[in-house]
Amino acid sequence: MLPFARVSIIGLGLIGSSIARAVRQHMPTVRLTGHDADPGVRARAVAIDLVDDVADTPGAAVTDADLVILCVPVGAMAAVAAAVAADLPADAIVSDVGSSKAGVEAALQAALPGATIIPAHPVAGTENSGPDAGFATLFHGRWCILTPPEGAGEAAIVRLTAFWEGLGAKVEIMDARHHDLVLAITSHLPHLIAYTIVGTASDLEEVTQSEVIKYSAGGFRDFTRIAASDPTMWRDVFLANKDAVLEMLQRFSEDLTALQRAIRWGDGDALFDLFTRTRAIRRSIIEQGQDDARPDFGRSHE
Amino acid sequence: MLPFARVSIIGLGLIGSSIARAVRQHMPTVRLTGHDADPGVRARAVAIDLVDDVADTPGAAVTDADLVILCVPVGAMAAVAAAVAADLPADAIVSDVGSSKAGVEAALQAALPGATIIPAHPVAGTENSGPDAGFATLFHGRWCILTPPEGAGEAAIVRLTAFWEGLGAKVEIMDARHHDLVLAITSHLPHLIAYTIVGTASDLEEVTQSEVIKYSAGGFRDFTRIAASDPTMWRDVFLANKDAVLEMLQRFSEDLTALQRAIRWGDGDALFDLFTRTRAIRRSIIEQGQDDARPDFGRSHE
Repeated sequence: MLPFARVSIIGLGLIGSSIARAVRQHMPTVRLTGHDADPGVRARAVAIDLVDDVADTPGAAVTDADLVILCVPVGAMAAVAAAVAADLPADAIVSDVGSSKAGVEAALQAALPGATIIPAHPVAGTENSGPDAGFATLFHGRWCILTPPEGAGEAAIVRLTAFWEGLGAKVEIMDARHHDLVLAITSHLPHLIAYTIVGTASDLEEVTQSEVIKYSAGGFRDFTRIAASDPTMWRDVFLANKDAVLEMLQRFSEDLTALQRAIRWGDGDALFDLFTRTRAIRRSIIEQGQDDARPDFGRSHE
Repeated sequence: MLPFARVSIIGLGLIGSSIARAVRQHMPTVRLTGHDADPGVRARAVAIDLVDDVADTPGAAVTDADLVILCVPVGAMAAVAAAVAADLPADAIVSDVGSSKAGVEAALQAALPGATIIPAHPVAGTENSGPDAGFATLFHGRWCILTPPEGAGEAAIVRLTAFWEGLGAKVEIMDARHHDLVLAITSHLPHLIAYTIVGTASDLEEVTQSEVIKYSAGGFRDFTRIAASDPTMWRDVFLANKDAVLEMLQRFSEDLTALQRAIRWGDGDALFDLFTRTRAIRRSIIEQGQDDARPDFGRSHE
């Protein structure tokens, strides 16, 4: 028994196109409809046969759906929800894949009063964007967090859970505010820091851009991957999850100041203690299957 | 014509053991001698046949070497250099692989007056440590920076260049102070930031350690790799390259404060501009062969 028969995906970028491919692979009888605001992306989706039907408007994409997934930047959720409101079937479940949840929940509830809304966040991705960047196994072994609003029906939660598990994900239920705090430290702050240091490195006068690139294997290149992520998506995340991000940033800055002081005063023990402590976390991440155990993330060494 | 016939490696960790394996692969007729301060590492080196001879003291390891490479944490360079001084052949070239160079140059010159000293830094590594972590291809396509002191003989530079090129590296000559500035931004600051954020994440009360680990695929896990690097090595780097690291850290902090302000005031354009700019650097790093072009560094997705 499939949890849904007709799935509509609005936004055919990395995540939307990965869902489409994963549905095709794991639930081949599901009827897939898609829409993207960009006509070029719609044409590409047709060309690569990403979904069964590419609709020209968001409304036309949802008319007979039993699951609608909004895969657009969080700043665009309100407008897209408003654009499907008139055509949304009464029994459809509306979900999304946004990286912040409290703001998205509020936006969807305001735009779609009375609809069954179960926001979701698959914690998976790569630094690439667009309909060609997606792949069917993106969600395998990754967590998808559902943040059902107060009073959400149990049946809808169960069906959406079955859907994501069907795509290979593990599902966790969480309060939207707690989600936003957890993701602020595990995702949003890392992106903010990566964007910052790549910017700092490219603004130096004493060190040329070409030197930064040549010697990036010393550690810098690890930061450039997430600093190559989609700018619109990430602008929206920081604006939408402002309070939690600023809170985590404040703690990080305090810790950085403490390390700065340890370096200035030559306090080797303080440095050594922290550097020893941080090894354990990576070990746990690998043990729990959330990263590659091979050195260098499994990068090729010829 | 091999540049050296008898190579001595002091310190058989990740880098020392990688040099040994690379020499065996690319220059099989070279006689390799090794020493490590840790008796357990020496026993392991014998067991895995890492080098032709494992010596019990640093002095015994260098008696007939024409190239001696010190592969120990930069804080240990002075003591190791002093320990080989009495046994060092007059015509041997002494080099090292330390991540900071001005301090190492001064330490080696003080301990080995009159010796031919050409400090070096192969910009390569993984997060793993010890004699089993090394591999022969670690230096392939990576840069090795030589920082010959003023007045260093051209012949010695040419021979050491040929040695590293023989192991598959590309060689660049640089002033030690400039090296320390370049590496402060491309390697030392990234490590400091990675260690800091992993520490920040593990100290939170509102978010559990288990949540940090579960949802690390949102970006955090990228930082944990370099935060799992050898604690002794990195403590020494920050103490040895204090001025350049503090200078880069200051610039990073200023840039982070500017972003913090942009988030606080909802200045989406400032965020978008930076996030767009940082994409180009990753593209260049990939084009120049300094990182894997595949998404997620080529991590496995089943």
